[in-house]
Amino acid sequence: MKTIFAAMKTIFAAIVLYTSSNCIASDPLPSWNDGTARDAIIDFVECSTKDGCINYIDPQDRIAVFDNDGTLWSEQPVYFQLMFAIDRVKEMAKEHPEWKSEQPFQAVLENDMEELKTSGKEGLMKIMAVTHAGMSTDEFAEIVHNWITTAKHPQKNMLYKDMVYQPMLELLDYLREHEFKTYIFSGGGIEFMRVFAEEVYGIPPEQVIGSSIVTKYELQDGVPVLIRQPKIDFIDDKEGKPISINKFLGKRPVAAFGNSDGDLQMLQWTTVGKGSRFGLIVHHTDGDREWAYDRESAIGRLDKAFTEAKAKGWTIVDMKQDWKTIYPEK
Amino acid sequence: MKTIFAAMKTIFAAIVLYTSSNCIASDPLPSWNDGTARDAIIDFVECSTKDGCINYIDPQDRIAVFDNDGTLWSEQPVYFQLMFAIDRVKEMAKEHPEWKSEQPFQAVLENDMEELKTSGKEGLMKIMAVTHAGMSTDEFAEIVHNWITTAKHPQKNMLYKDMVYQPMLELLDYLREHEFKTYIFSGGGIEFMRVFAEEVYGIPPEQVIGSSIVTKYELQDGVPVLIRQPKIDFIDDKEGKPISINKFLGKRPVAAFGNSDGDLQMLQWTTVGKGSRFGLIVHHTDGDREWAYDRESAIGRLDKAFTEAKAKGWTIVDMKQDWKTIYPEK
Repeated sequence: MKTIFAAMKTIFAAIVLYTSSNCIASDPLPSWNDGTARDAIIDFVECSTKDGCINYIDPQDRIAVFDNDGTLWSEQPVYFQLMFAIDRVKEMAKEHPEWKSEQPFQAVLENDMEELKTSGKEGLMKIMAVTHAGMSTDEFAEIVHNWITTAKHPQKNMLYKDMVYQPMLELLDYLREHEFKTYIFSGGGIEFMRVFAEEVYGIPPEQVIGSSIVTKYELQDGVPVLIRQPKIDFIDDKEGKPISINKFLGKRPVAAFGNSDGDLQMLQWTTVGKGSRFGLIVHHTDGDREWAYDRESAIGRLDKAFTEAKAKGWTIVDMKQDWKTIYPEK
Repeated sequence: MKTIFAAMKTIFAAIVLYTSSNCIASDPLPSWNDGTARDAIIDFVECSTKDGCINYIDPQDRIAVFDNDGTLWSEQPVYFQLMFAIDRVKEMAKEHPEWKSEQPFQAVLENDMEELKTSGKEGLMKIMAVTHAGMSTDEFAEIVHNWITTAKHPQKNMLYKDMVYQPMLELLDYLREHEFKTYIFSGGGIEFMRVFAEEVYGIPPEQVIGSSIVTKYELQDGVPVLIRQPKIDFIDDKEGKPISINKFLGKRPVAAFGNSDGDLQMLQWTTVGKGSRFGLIVHHTDGDREWAYDRESAIGRLDKAFTEAKAKGWTIVDMKQDWKTIYPEK
């Protein structure tokens, strides 16, 4: 028996050696340049997951929350969900000849963004009502699926779902490899994002939370359906983020990742908790490879959260400096 | 090397034999009597988790949803959360001398349930406002924790958290052992249940969903808090259950467990999905060991759902016949 155990020990040692050398050899964040942002991420993850470390976090408390627009994928020149609505109006216009002379639809059909802006929130709500409501949840998911697998960004000529940030995909994987549970809390539509979040980010539907509209339960020929109503249920932005984090999670995350003033309260709520905490802001500085904008931008404005990030020592990612690549290579 | 592998094979065979004989020997539902309900549960779980079986369900789709009041714990003579509110009014009355002559508080302080009933929904809302709102989410959790660990049921003289059904605890464990994810969707308060659901049912906060009130994000001396407002956000009952299941899960469960008309839509929604599905209704038939009630009860009425359960072949548990014990032995 002694021989057997000695042999088994050798085999096990070889396995352990292979596994650990494999770990050390592979860079978990290959698209990140060396710098303070990368260091801060690795420090946080390594320290909070090493048993015995003063900043150790129990696996069940390893919850990381991410904004979506501007944090995991691009958001210029307008949020991609608005592009979906615009494409959808054009698609539906065949059955609505009256839209040719009815605002805000006319503006959409004529690509008149200035006119569209003048229709304001009321106009936007009309567009959202026809494109996002009036169908069952299953039908809506199918419409979004068809769009996300075919529609392309007008300037970049890329599928929208390919305009996700490769460095952030690596970060999501890196966190999950260290037993962090990754969630999205976004101002975007909950049922819009859930269609592609699992495939694109590896985040399952129940971990994708966003703004919602009211749904109504109906029996159609005895078959239950949920019909989407043209009425806002909840806006998951600004103060809404900690509110929905509390509602959906029932506990406080330990790490939060955002890019705009809409994420400020989520970062405040996350980083004041006891023990090791991490807050990160993606700063859009790369006008060549992506877009450059911050304090003055109408979309994804980063002003108050920028000031507070500096004051509180949250990690600020400079896209131009810190990221080797922006989008995944195809 | 041949000798080593032969020895390893023997060791592995012994481990496998030990593990599997252990599985066969232990009864997963020891508090359930033999009968159609027990058979239906075991058939569903065994068939849906055996690879190659026609009713096989992928692990990521194994989602089971449970009602709480009357399904996992008792609910008579009134929902336990109302008992909490009543106890809380009595506790708070020290600081509210005016309640001695102000309805509905006077009725509560004088244990005058008839008078309390006449105050109707408006009276109930007043009680909920003072007992469930006006404090931070953390403060509320502490108040509930203090109550649930000390308060006793007036008739049974048991802690409320001990008035959970032993057979259902076994069922929860049995499902989880077969990689089902167990959720609560209850008309009860989401932040009320989350205080004890993990300890009592083994269900973590993010898998406990219930009715909610509005919360407001505030900075108090720079520290963010969520303050509970005296305003209903969502009632997670009847049609509300499939609506919140869709919102919180983003996918359809495969098994649903309830006991009253408040669970009807949850069972409809769950059982019409494709593939193997399971619906179960707990029928309160045991007036000696628990309570006996159904079609005429004001609390936990089982009328429409009873008729539909029979018509659709959902499993009906007869508590008196099917359960060897009601509450866990202490």
